[in-house]
Amino acid sequence: MTMSAGVEWGVHVCLLLAQANGGLVRRRAIADHFGLPEAYLAKQLTKLVAAGVLDAVPGPAGGYRLASDPKRITLLNIVEAIEGTRSSFVCTEIRRQGTGAADPSECVADCTVKSAMLAADNAWRQALRAQTVNDLSSRLSDSVRRRYASTARR
Amino acid sequence: MTMSAGVEWGVHVCLLLAQANGGLVRRRAIADHFGLPEAYLAKQLTKLVAAGVLDAVPGPAGGYRLASDPKRITLLNIVEAIEGTRSSFVCTEIRRQGTGAADPSECVADCTVKSAMLAADNAWRQALRAQTVNDLSSRLSDSVRRRYASTARR
Repeated sequence: MTMSAGVEWGVHVCLLLAQANGGLVRRRAIADHFGLPEAYLAKQLTKLVAAGVLDAVPGPAGGYRLASDPKRITLLNIVEAIEGTRSSFVCTEIRRQGTGAADPSECVADCTVKSAMLAADNAWRQALRAQTVNDLSSRLSDSVRRRYASTARR
Repeated sequence: MTMSAGVEWGVHVCLLLAQANGGLVRRRAIADHFGLPEAYLAKQLTKLVAAGVLDAVPGPAGGYRLASDPKRITLLNIVEAIEGTRSSFVCTEIRRQGTGAADPSECVADCTVKSAMLAADNAWRQALRAQTVNDLSSRLSDSVRRRYASTARR
C-alpha cells in the first residue's frame, strides 16, 4: 500500500510557501527549487487548490500561496487533497457471497473486519491531523528554511 | 491510497480457520464459502503461508490452518503478509535535487516531512497490531461463527 510521490511534493511545497508570508510564488520557481517536472507538479498543485489548501492567482504576476494560516493546514489536508478521502481498506463485502453468504438482514452494520480496519485507518488520519504545516515548518533546519525563504520571496 | 482486496480476503480466511480448532481446511472449501476465484485466492494464501500466518499441508488430505494461536496473529501480520512491510509514504528525497538541493551532509537524518509521515504510518500499524484474530473472532455474530465453523469442520 503506497501513496503517490505527489504527497511528498505537496508537503514540501506547503512548507516552502509557508516561508513566503502570504506572498505569491510562481510554479516555475517551485519546480526549479525541487527539480520537479513542471507539468506533473501542476497536477498536484491543481489538487491542492481544489481541496482548498492553496490559492492560485492567474496571470503574469500570479502564483501560488497557502489558502489559510499554516497553523490551520494539517498533513491530513494535504494527503487527502492528493490521495482522496477514501479509506485505505477496500471492502468488497465478501460476507454477502458464496456458500457462506450472510442474509442481507445480517449486513446492516459494518462487519467486524471492516470496523477494525477502519479504526486503524482512522488512527493514521488522526496522526496526520495532529501535525500542521506550522508544526513541520518550525522543525525545519535553518539552512532548509533559508533556502525555502529564498525561493519563496524571489 | 488503497490496499488490495486480498487484505479483506486474508482476514476473513483467518477468522474462518480460527473456527477449525487446528484442523485443515481445503482451499476449494474456502473459495466456495466466500465465492472467490480459487486461483486468485491461492495467491493470497501463498503470501499468508510465506509470512508465517498460515500453514499449508499438501496432498489429498491437506489444506490450510492457522500457523499459531489466534491470540498471537494480529491484523498487522495479515496486512503485511498481503501488502508487504514498506511504509505507505513514498519518499523520493526531493530535498536532494533542484536549485534548492540540500548538501549531502544535511541529509544524514530523515527530513521533517518523512519523520511526520512515518509516525502516522506507525500509528496505523500500531492500531493493526493491537487487534488479534482472536479479538475479531470473539466479536463475530453467532450466525457468522456458525457458518464459518460449518465450512471449517466439513
